[in-house]
Amino acid sequence: MEERIIEESEKYRGRIIRVKEYKVVLSNGREAKREVVHHPGAVAILPIDKNGSVFFVKQYRLPARKVLLEIPAGKLDKNEKPEDCAIRELEEEIGYIPKKLCLIHAFFPSPGISDEILYLFEASDLEKTKENPDEDEYLEIITLKRDEIKKALLEGNFEDSKTLIAVYYYLYSRGN
Amino acid sequence: MEERIIEESEKYRGRIIRVKEYKVVLSNGREAKREVVHHPGAVAILPIDKNGSVFFVKQYRLPARKVLLEIPAGKLDKNEKPEDCAIRELEEEIGYIPKKLCLIHAFFPSPGISDEILYLFEASDLEKTKENPDEDEYLEIITLKRDEIKKALLEGNFEDSKTLIAVYYYLYSRGN
Repeated sequence: MEERIIEESEKYRGRIIRVKEYKVVLSNGREAKREVVHHPGAVAILPIDKNGSVFFVKQYRLPARKVLLEIPAGKLDKNEKPEDCAIRELEEEIGYIPKKLCLIHAFFPSPGISDEILYLFEASDLEKTKENPDEDEYLEIITLKRDEIKKALLEGNFEDSKTLIAVYYYLYSRGN
Repeated sequence: MEERIIEESEKYRGRIIRVKEYKVVLSNGREAKREVVHHPGAVAILPIDKNGSVFFVKQYRLPARKVLLEIPAGKLDKNEKPEDCAIRELEEEIGYIPKKLCLIHAFFPSPGISDEILYLFEASDLEKTKENPDEDEYLEIITLKRDEIKKALLEGNFEDSKTLIAVYYYLYSRGN
């Protein structure tokens, strides 16, 4: 099934992504072209407090042209470990440090076009470190209880892949 | 929270994606730059047979540099309705037409960087139309029962966002 790369050329280099075009040979010997978005990878955090409530953030997403209700997330800095990134982003976005952090899934959000990997963590035993998280983050923090999360899911209020996976994991792993 | 676009320029135009850079004004009046991957959108289908088993496909994904176990999916053709695309892709990939098709979620796989929307459908009342689906699709069809899906999820065999969402939906909506 593998595709063998016989040519590649970089077409775009931005601050975050690069785009390359590849010429590949398929298993039947035919050639094909591929466009790939290279991305540094990211983390997302499902932060659960001692009562079982979850912290979400609302923020404007230019690609979506709207405000989305998401779990906290952020891109990996160069050479940064996913765990360190998760702790940094959680504190930056909601002002808490987790004493417990556990990887739920590592997945490709869009494997047909991008090499982005997203590391999704469950964070618990949360300890408050800042009264007011970074104002530069331009986001609003929302805390939802289990029933509110079920309702928001049914009403279609979660509209991005990492948040849907995190919410289903949360509901599924804690029984119906 | 909204970001107002004051400048945009196209940096790459491929067969599938385009990349644009935007200059935006934030709510506090400061300016920022954004890189956005424009994508035609896609569908994914959770095909459930009369015994409750699910069809998956295995295929090589160049961006991921590996073979992934996914639900059937494909990009929207120009002006194609998501429902029509779901029916077309399902027949192309597994050789079945669904008599029942229902939208589960429409979501952004990667809302920080791309405007791609993925429409996820549940397909049932499946009717076989082809003995051997397109050989050009380069994929292997796998059918998994509920218990096998639970096991594959725990073992980390689902590695992309649409498949994880579909599998959690399937397990969650049918009880633990």
